[in-house]
Amino acid sequence: MTTILSVSTHDLRARTSAFLHGSDANHPDPDYSAAYVVLHTDGAHEGHGMTFTIGKGNELCCAAIEALSELVVGRRLSDLTDHMGAFWRSITNHSQLRWLGPDKGVIHLATAALVNAVWDLWAKEEGKPVWQLVADMSPAQFVDCIDFRYLRDEVDEVRALEMLQRRQAGKPERLAELRRDGYPAYITSAGWLGYPENEVRARCQAALGLGWRSFKTKVGIDVTSDQRRCEVMREELGDGIQLMADANQVWDVQQAIDWTNELSAFGLRWIEEPTHPDDVLGHATIRRGVQPVGVATGEHAANRLMFKQLLQAEAIDYAQIDACRLGGLNEVLAVLLLAAARGVPVCPHAGGIGLCEYVQHISIIDYLCVSGSLADRTTEYADHLHEHFLHPAQVRDGAYVVPEAPGYSIEMHPASIAALRFPDGAEWR
Amino acid sequence: MTTILSVSTHDLRARTSAFLHGSDANHPDPDYSAAYVVLHTDGAHEGHGMTFTIGKGNELCCAAIEALSELVVGRRLSDLTDHMGAFWRSITNHSQLRWLGPDKGVIHLATAALVNAVWDLWAKEEGKPVWQLVADMSPAQFVDCIDFRYLRDEVDEVRALEMLQRRQAGKPERLAELRRDGYPAYITSAGWLGYPENEVRARCQAALGLGWRSFKTKVGIDVTSDQRRCEVMREELGDGIQLMADANQVWDVQQAIDWTNELSAFGLRWIEEPTHPDDVLGHATIRRGVQPVGVATGEHAANRLMFKQLLQAEAIDYAQIDACRLGGLNEVLAVLLLAAARGVPVCPHAGGIGLCEYVQHISIIDYLCVSGSLADRTTEYADHLHEHFLHPAQVRDGAYVVPEAPGYSIEMHPASIAALRFPDGAEWR
Repeated sequence: MTTILSVSTHDLRARTSAFLHGSDANHPDPDYSAAYVVLHTDGAHEGHGMTFTIGKGNELCCAAIEALSELVVGRRLSDLTDHMGAFWRSITNHSQLRWLGPDKGVIHLATAALVNAVWDLWAKEEGKPVWQLVADMSPAQFVDCIDFRYLRDEVDEVRALEMLQRRQAGKPERLAELRRDGYPAYITSAGWLGYPENEVRARCQAALGLGWRSFKTKVGIDVTSDQRRCEVMREELGDGIQLMADANQVWDVQQAIDWTNELSAFGLRWIEEPTHPDDVLGHATIRRGVQPVGVATGEHAANRLMFKQLLQAEAIDYAQIDACRLGGLNEVLAVLLLAAARGVPVCPHAGGIGLCEYVQHISIIDYLCVSGSLADRTTEYADHLHEHFLHPAQVRDGAYVVPEAPGYSIEMHPASIAALRFPDGAEWR
Repeated sequence: MTTILSVSTHDLRARTSAFLHGSDANHPDPDYSAAYVVLHTDGAHEGHGMTFTIGKGNELCCAAIEALSELVVGRRLSDLTDHMGAFWRSITNHSQLRWLGPDKGVIHLATAALVNAVWDLWAKEEGKPVWQLVADMSPAQFVDCIDFRYLRDEVDEVRALEMLQRRQAGKPERLAELRRDGYPAYITSAGWLGYPENEVRARCQAALGLGWRSFKTKVGIDVTSDQRRCEVMREELGDGIQLMADANQVWDVQQAIDWTNELSAFGLRWIEEPTHPDDVLGHATIRRGVQPVGVATGEHAANRLMFKQLLQAEAIDYAQIDACRLGGLNEVLAVLLLAAARGVPVCPHAGGIGLCEYVQHISIIDYLCVSGSLADRTTEYADHLHEHFLHPAQVRDGAYVVPEAPGYSIEMHPASIAALRFPDGAEWR
């Protein structure tokens, strides 16, 4: 009978811009940040959650979490979790706050932090990692976590139930496979745009030595330097290794087509975020123009409606959901269903701070419960800032190790919370 | 040589929920609010701007304006206005803050307030209303106000210049016509969902007496009561009067089609916001399913990309731009061009607080400079809260009177700013 008594927020920022970690064509100087929330209860556990930003404005997400917190303070945990889809709608459809979205921007980023903290708390109470909490649900319980409004022209409750029932078979075998081999991943932290050539070479070699077989580079500054960067990585990686490129939204539609085709000689598996994330139809045009290079996007796809349309318009080859951009795990589950219904692989966006910790659960849920497939799937990994987490994401031979600690893996060390606090923590003094 | 010295923000809210003004199917209790900003200068004028919300969360918009304000404080006004499109991109493409959107939600609403305050200041310095400041620009100057990135697959700089040059002819005659007849408008404040039937009847009669010939009602609670509401309004209005219906995003796609067809006997000109505002393809499906009723949307279309796609997908008959949802006048001008290029009438969303004051300028600019047409155009009007403005929007015989005072008509009386301040103003004590 746990009750949520209060909520505290923390504006946490890492000074990553000083090292050009995370630098790309549109974000040259990110300070990886977390708008972090703790649900304090009368029970044995706290719920921890966060949303990810890249510095300035993180305080707005904290303020938005505070604005939403009155919707959970004083509530019994079971009142929320017994009707998880209805709880989610109560957060995202608040009669006044929804004007600030709906389902997008600061208020939706804050929704992710708060909703994921409830999932973390619930999973800790159940003594399970979040992926297992979901995997142990019946198909009907899974469906009950989702708000299907606006999705029913694509996937409704009946269709979802059928899809999930079909995946009940073989779940133990798939889990055993994941525990043995891990979930396939790729690494981004070799190819940040701000790194000099020798650092890129050194990082590629180091990552190959650790067993990585799938890599991503940033592009989008100028064609010549992008070609050179791809050439350098191909030289280091050889031909058998997967290479993807990420433009981080810098191009117009036609420009994206022309530029990507200039890079296709390097055997790119996908071009990521080739244009503005809201331009569904633009992505569809680009996809038709750059084959055989695939199109990937989603880290800035604000909500399930954007994914619904990216899928309906056949605009993407890979759905890169983000654990914080979407309004928490409930909406992530909806997008897993939408993508599986269209046969499009989900390859979550990660990196930053905390995203790897989150998305490992999502990919495992997708394999166990929804898509049942690892074909053409790979989940992003970047090797930054994991030391701040009690149970950091672990990788082995280019794959995520299945997390076994109860919760959503997002709880930070108290010392890290103190050190990263902006602007008075040790990181900023 | 005016310089912006500092920025102050004010969290202003009217207790409209107590009277059910503005009530609709998704927003039963709006408190019309303004995140209000003043640019203080070393010159003779201040710049005033605001963004509109419906209550809770208005403080987040104020905080976001403060986060953006460092991008204008200390800047010379002419440095901004000499390169208005580049200035706009510097606000919307800040390397860290853009993560919170891009181009959507709280940070974009705040952008509107700040950008429009710069336009207000500029127009006051020039001694012109904003519409005239724009109408007096050369086509090249107009084009220079717009960031065409992401739009060029639809309208690029060259096409825009051609469109604007074509509209140079006849401008004085169109202005004389507007000064004589006003800009055509419709009234929403007769049909709020929370009003009882007798109040709807009384408000229809009063509005007819004032010369209104175009009306809108709210729908979306249940089919029977919606039919009754339309029936009541048709009884009061007769057959010659335009009637529109607004569902405020409550329906799924198929539900929107079925429900609208249940109401089409009442001769609806359009169904507004039939589903989630992000669902471009859903709107296209609905449009095909409800003819001859038109589809209108846009007050929650987050940015120019969403309008570009609504137009490309042939999803709308009417583009309802919002002066605050879009990131200020620069982005509004872009959408006017996109709509004109496709021949879709712009019928701005208004009401709330301050929106009527803003959008009158937009419609006048559209007629004088961009579309050159009044055919099938009508701009929303609601009769609330105008008393707070120094130069309130005025209507006569169902049409907006051309505003002649310098600025963007958005400056409030100091007494109103004091009274509406949340939570300590007289309105809230």
